[in-house]
Amino acid sequence: MKRTSIYLFIFLVLSSCTRPKTALVIQTDFGLKDGAVNAMKGVAFNIDRELLVYDLTHEIPTFDIWTAGYRLYQAAPFWPAGTVFVSVVDPGVGTNRKSIVMQSASGLFFVTPDDGTITLVSDALGITAVREIDEHLNRRPGSEGSFTFHGRDVYMYTAARLAAGKISFEEVGPLLKGKPVLLDYQKPILTDRAVKGNIPVLDVQYGNIWTNVHDSLFSQLHIQPGEPVNVQILYKDSVVFVGHIPYANTFGDVAEKKPLAYLNSLMNFSVAINMGNFADSFRIGSGKDWSIILKKE
Amino acid sequence: MKRTSIYLFIFLVLSSCTRPKTALVIQTDFGLKDGAVNAMKGVAFNIDRELLVYDLTHEIPTFDIWTAGYRLYQAAPFWPAGTVFVSVVDPGVGTNRKSIVMQSASGLFFVTPDDGTITLVSDALGITAVREIDEHLNRRPGSEGSFTFHGRDVYMYTAARLAAGKISFEEVGPLLKGKPVLLDYQKPILTDRAVKGNIPVLDVQYGNIWTNVHDSLFSQLHIQPGEPVNVQILYKDSVVFVGHIPYANTFGDVAEKKPLAYLNSLMNFSVAINMGNFADSFRIGSGKDWSIILKKE
Amino acid sequence: MKRTSIYLFIFLVLSSCTRPKTALVIQTDFGLKDGAVNAMKGVAFNIDRELLVYDLTHEIPTFDIWTAGYRLYQAAPFWPAGTVFVSVVDPGVGTNRKSIVMQSASGLFFVTPDDGTITLVSDALGITAVREIDEHLNRRPGSEGSFTFHGRDVYMYTAARLAAGKISFEEVGPLLKGKPVLLDYQKPILTDRAVKGNIPVLDVQYGNIWTNVHDSLFSQLHIQPGEPVNVQILYKDSVVFVGHIPYANTFGDVAEKKPLAYLNSLMNFSVAINMGNFADSFRIGSGKDWSIILKKE
Repeated sequence: MKRTSIYLFIFLVLSSCTRPKTALVIQTDFGLKDGAVNAMKGVAFNIDRELLVYDLTHEIPTFDIWTAGYRLYQAAPFWPAGTVFVSVVDPGVGTNRKSIVMQSASGLFFVTPDDGTITLVSDALGITAVREIDEHLNRRPGSEGSFTFHGRDVYMYTAARLAAGKISFEEVGPLLKGKPVLLDYQKPILTDRAVKGNIPVLDVQYGNIWTNVHDSLFSQLHIQPGEPVNVQILYKDSVVFVGHIPYANTFGDVAEKKPLAYLNSLMNFSVAINMGNFADSFRIGSGKDWSIILKKE
Repeated sequence: MKRTSIYLFIFLVLSSCTRPKTALVIQTDFGLKDGAVNAMKGVAFNIDRELLVYDLTHEIPTFDIWTAGYRLYQAAPFWPAGTVFVSVVDPGVGTNRKSIVMQSASGLFFVTPDDGTITLVSDALGITAVREIDEHLNRRPGSEGSFTFHGRDVYMYTAARLAAGKISFEEVGPLLKGKPVLLDYQKPILTDRAVKGNIPVLDVQYGNIWTNVHDSLFSQLHIQPGEPVNVQILYKDSVVFVGHIPYANTFGDVAEKKPLAYLNSLMNFSVAINMGNFADSFRIGSGKDWSIILKKE
Repeated sequence: MKRTSIYLFIFLVLSSCTRPKTALVIQTDFGLKDGAVNAMKGVAFNIDRELLVYDLTHEIPTFDIWTAGYRLYQAAPFWPAGTVFVSVVDPGVGTNRKSIVMQSASGLFFVTPDDGTITLVSDALGITAVREIDEHLNRRPGSEGSFTFHGRDVYMYTAARLAAGKISFEEVGPLLKGKPVLLDYQKPILTDRAVKGNIPVLDVQYGNIWTNVHDSLFSQLHIQPGEPVNVQILYKDSVVFVGHIPYANTFGDVAEKKPLAYLNSLMNFSVAINMGNFADSFRIGSGKDWSIILKKE
């Protein structure tokens, strides 16, 4: 008996000791000049000191839900099932917008306002279920009087408890009634020998143009490396750029300061200038109003 | 005998394995462009690989002791007792300013120069004891010839050893003789139907005005949500802004681009423009020379 | 038998539980606005959840190999043997530049393109061996079609597996044939009562001038604290600054807004203005074309 219980004790401690760690990945539009992000991490640390908290970015442009959604889409595929993402870009804080946790088909969790932030990860990863956070049950104790920092008191608190296994996905709250808010954007399409798509984001550090046209669609134009692509870029209905750009495997395939078309690290069609800045040179922006048309010469 | 010693061995290993982790939270005015912050983290890692090092911010304006103190005040309450904070904003490095560790009544430790950095956390959390760092005992071995990077060689080294349990609080050094340096600032007061306070900091990312007037004081003006607050903002003796601003529970209670008064995430009286920037619009700054007067209409 | 196997099981679990953790230190020129750095961390987390990933900086100026090398030089000495550094500043991505892992004599590993990034750590720490990454064996599964993000798919993947002990240094790939690329720069020299050296970098946050003249060389000029140093700063062959600057132990030894010469935290000769910005005041830059000449009066 005694020995059995000692074994049991050892087993239990070892189990907790060797429990696979879960990652909590956070992004905000708070920047890193003030103490808000650190306060959120303190909340998580109070819940479970073993949690591994990773920053995605805290430099989402203020209130820019679209970009918040894009950054989740960009990073999420590289994390294992069970990872919990928290996105606090919340122009609607204090309004009646709902707070949700989306479980993707790939087993990731996204804790955000129900404002469309999950649009791109939903399309890319698939939705298994969306639950509405019950803020009576899932709110940092003592924070009831604070209306303005749901990121810390509701989202981080709920996400950390979910990641730590203190609550199950079901305990987040009931299944969301109706559909989550999803943003409208130009899906990539092939029409009569042309591909049309959207420019969701710029590769900001380098000024490269990223599109939502995946290699699997672009390849239907049968353009080989070394051949030119006929590229048109439009803002709403105005053509901002027209040109023939060589399709290259890599930047080094063209001379410095020359443009190239290539597949970026997500295997999406992109345009850049080798050792230069395409977006600045041709005044290209990104977002739902920017589109691109590709043709074979 | 043999079995007992095996149990003892297992117990000791399990104890070390399951020792609750301590957090080390660091802030500096170094920025993140160079390698100084990373070198500090290497020093901590050399002392204890289990330490969890969290950044507060490294973007304190250069030499701005007041803001350093404010960031500690903003983040510290969210961390558990035992957490060690290191703040390296040190215009007096190499002078005869002392180096201290302050233990708050809430059980947190603050490792900083004795230059007033601890002012706001002292007022908010209470001081249990202040010890002067004995730099002969608590200095990174081999760093004796370096006079200019106490942040790495004294503060981080001492903080990491304290957090790791390699030294006790008493082993930091003797109790500080006399009082620590505390900065002078306008405390919030209620006088004859008006509340006066200080604007310690701006919510820099959004341009919101944060004050040191807590809800518990502001509520004595008996202003209900929806009612206007008569707000005056002064730089020294000059009135910079006067206006009637509605008191709201949350940003969504007013139209876009309209001002509102609200309680921020620390439950302090604040002023903002919904989806706008109050500080830029009215050229409001922060610091000891900025004050605010609030009255009921 | 049974008891023995239980002990063995316990021993194995405890061993894994108490294995000393290895640090993985990363730097890039990606900035932190997008999701690229986080995706790299997800790759590491998938390989080993126990790995401790530390940022050096992600604000290396775009494609600036020299500065990347300098940041490694600045931070690496503070990390213990076994630490793995990854530097992804890679203007040559997709060209035939090689990918290497350098093992320093101090037992650190540096995973980078073979483009000179390792120059300064090689000179400071010594090279034990350089291996060329075999990208057929050491490449993130599923990433074969992506040509442009070696930082994530080759460098981070290889570095994380090396840090986690999933591959040995030998399994990185074969020893590099020939010498690694090393950049040419002005080594510090003593000639006829003058010391000449390079200005590798500015202390960007404060505008201080850092040189590669170590105390051990500078001290041969026999200048005592309080005595002036005759300082000339040149861009190529043009003299940009000439002056007599007092040699001080610390900033507080001179009045505010006055220049001083001092030893920085790496014990290298440096020039600054107390509470001011020397580089801005005298338009001093850094890099291979900037040099400094020091003489005793």
